[in-house]
Amino acid sequence: MTVTQEHLDTDTLTGVVAHDISDDPFPVSGWDALVWASGNATQSAQYFQLAFGMRLEAYSGPETGNRDHHAYVLRAGSVRFVIKGAVSPESPVADHHRRHGDGVLDVALEVPDVDKCVAHARAAGAQIVTEPHDSTDSHGTVRTAAIKAYGDTTHTLVDRSRYHGPYLPGYVARGGAVHETPAFVALDHVVGNVELGAMDEWVAFYHRVMGFTNLAEFIGDDIATEYSALMSKVVASGDHRVKFPLNEPAVGKRKSQIDEYLEFYGGPGVQHLALATPDICETVDALRERGVEFLATPDSYYTDTVLRQRIGEVLVGAHHVDAREVECLSRQVRQRLTRFDLRAPLAQDRLEIS
Amino acid sequence: MTVTQEHLDTDTLTGVVAHDISDDPFPVSGWDALVWASGNATQSAQYFQLAFGMRLEAYSGPETGNRDHHAYVLRAGSVRFVIKGAVSPESPVADHHRRHGDGVLDVALEVPDVDKCVAHARAAGAQIVTEPHDSTDSHGTVRTAAIKAYGDTTHTLVDRSRYHGPYLPGYVARGGAVHETPAFVALDHVVGNVELGAMDEWVAFYHRVMGFTNLAEFIGDDIATEYSALMSKVVASGDHRVKFPLNEPAVGKRKSQIDEYLEFYGGPGVQHLALATPDICETVDALRERGVEFLATPDSYYTDTVLRQRIGEVLVGAHHVDAREVECLSRQVRQRLTRFDLRAPLAQDRLEIS
Repeated sequence: MTVTQEHLDTDTLTGVVAHDISDDPFPVSGWDALVWASGNATQSAQYFQLAFGMRLEAYSGPETGNRDHHAYVLRAGSVRFVIKGAVSPESPVADHHRRHGDGVLDVALEVPDVDKCVAHARAAGAQIVTEPHDSTDSHGTVRTAAIKAYGDTTHTLVDRSRYHGPYLPGYVARGGAVHETPAFVALDHVVGNVELGAMDEWVAFYHRVMGFTNLAEFIGDDIATEYSALMSKVVASGDHRVKFPLNEPAVGKRKSQIDEYLEFYGGPGVQHLALATPDICETVDALRERGVEFLATPDSYYTDTVLRQRIGEVLVGAHHVDAREVECLSRQVRQRLTRFDLRAPLAQDRLEIS
Repeated sequence: MTVTQEHLDTDTLTGVVAHDISDDPFPVSGWDALVWASGNATQSAQYFQLAFGMRLEAYSGPETGNRDHHAYVLRAGSVRFVIKGAVSPESPVADHHRRHGDGVLDVALEVPDVDKCVAHARAAGAQIVTEPHDSTDSHGTVRTAAIKAYGDTTHTLVDRSRYHGPYLPGYVARGGAVHETPAFVALDHVVGNVELGAMDEWVAFYHRVMGFTNLAEFIGDDIATEYSALMSKVVASGDHRVKFPLNEPAVGKRKSQIDEYLEFYGGPGVQHLALATPDICETVDALRERGVEFLATPDSYYTDTVLRQRIGEVLVGAHHVDAREVECLSRQVRQRLTRFDLRAPLAQDRLEIS
């Protein structure tokens, strides 16, 4: 297979639009990190390096004075994963793992002004899990706070403008030995599954607390077909860099996949991530060789008119194909039901495959 | 690096001796499987394929009617790993993971006569966890039972002489996409850590219940040096194919590594495995490239006279080196303190490295 393509920057890949966040009531600069609770953080971190080509950047654990958990900071492009695993059964990370299996603890957002965000969130009725505070080491000072989101998920707000360390105070720089090609370059969106009837409540939460707006192209689609049976709305930060689709179950011909998630995950939580790759065909081929399994995409994903409108177009080999997004399951990423999306390039991209 | 070597069969690598097991009170033919409880079996199974070149052979899980856990059966040479991960928080696999983190649930042994073994074990005072019973599917019948060992560890006894399926009834054949070179060919020994004062009790258990004998070369060494601080005795099946070193803490200059294990693992359990590879130098190099980390071997491992006697000799490049066994830590294999040994070839082996 030969693939040629024009350069696409990650903002284009992920649909970022021009917007001045400084007037936002809750200004969000972008993603900071996806923080995972893992049953074996050391092995998970190695897996993400071997299978997805992420690079180890930093570490915290018993050797650095953290007796509660191990944590590995991995990077691919602008995507940062922090994989945490309990050292003792009393760790909150062990609690989360017991309830949910491997899953996302925290979707951390980069903000220029933690206190302004928290003040707005508090006034809007959000639960402040951790009040704003500074953490300092020889690399500088980070200001953080955290607010509660759906289920056991939190949003940590991070201002690292005065910090130049590898991740956060308490972490030390650490590199890995694996040098596979990274499979993705940016985080496109993080999908949350919530209970029946709770979708609009959480859409309203992101409107009210974070000043997010609905992404017009995805509003109000009722996707209640045989293969999906879900309701979904998408909220986004001002410049669309941070996007949160929120799903709730819908009645379909079969049991809703969202009900199935809620049952297996043990409540609401992050269902899947969409990750941007400049070359989805090459990436999928490479990942398959590394043992990553993909969901078969049902034909209706291409033929259903509502979905077609939602998915848009991709150019592959100068021909239009009927998918902008390829949904795929990495059984390796989530033991239970979280899916791992690889977001296809936008229509501007051109792939030639021979 | 160029490596040449004479062929060594795995029996030679693992020190098997001539012995007729048919007269043993508890005849053991060999290892059947190492059964792991994992926090994310799907990811672990992928990891063992990517990092250690194991091959996926069989699977059980929700798709095959097993609502309790996923289980992946992996093979390298004669070594079989079964990686289990809970599907629901109520699974016993989740209990084990919560108490211990990733760890070994069961050290399964192949026996020609399950009922004879269980009758002898019962008479000798062993706790029978699962009585002998048949499991049947279209591939035939397997007879199994299980007895309790140290901590939460069990020994399942397996007679698969009338079975030709991929693993056990309930499992379906499944292959993987990863085809890395296997890092090992046979299991040499499985080490158990037990509480202070319990080593002789467990040595007596394996004598009494399984008719195991002490391996003369390892008897009664008190290894209480700065870097180890442990007492260790090794029991073995009649032909030495199955070997169980049993460690308890000893007073040393620093806290015993065994105490540290007992604290972090939450009680007695499997500490590490020793795996035979025909070419340890090449294997270690290859594993390092796949991100596997190794414990630095302390100089005293080569200079301490007691240890030298225990370790024996290796020929590398026609020169004797002072280690038959290279202890190495795979941080990936056990999040906590289990070590992953790669057993070096015996002195008959010749490695030439240029």
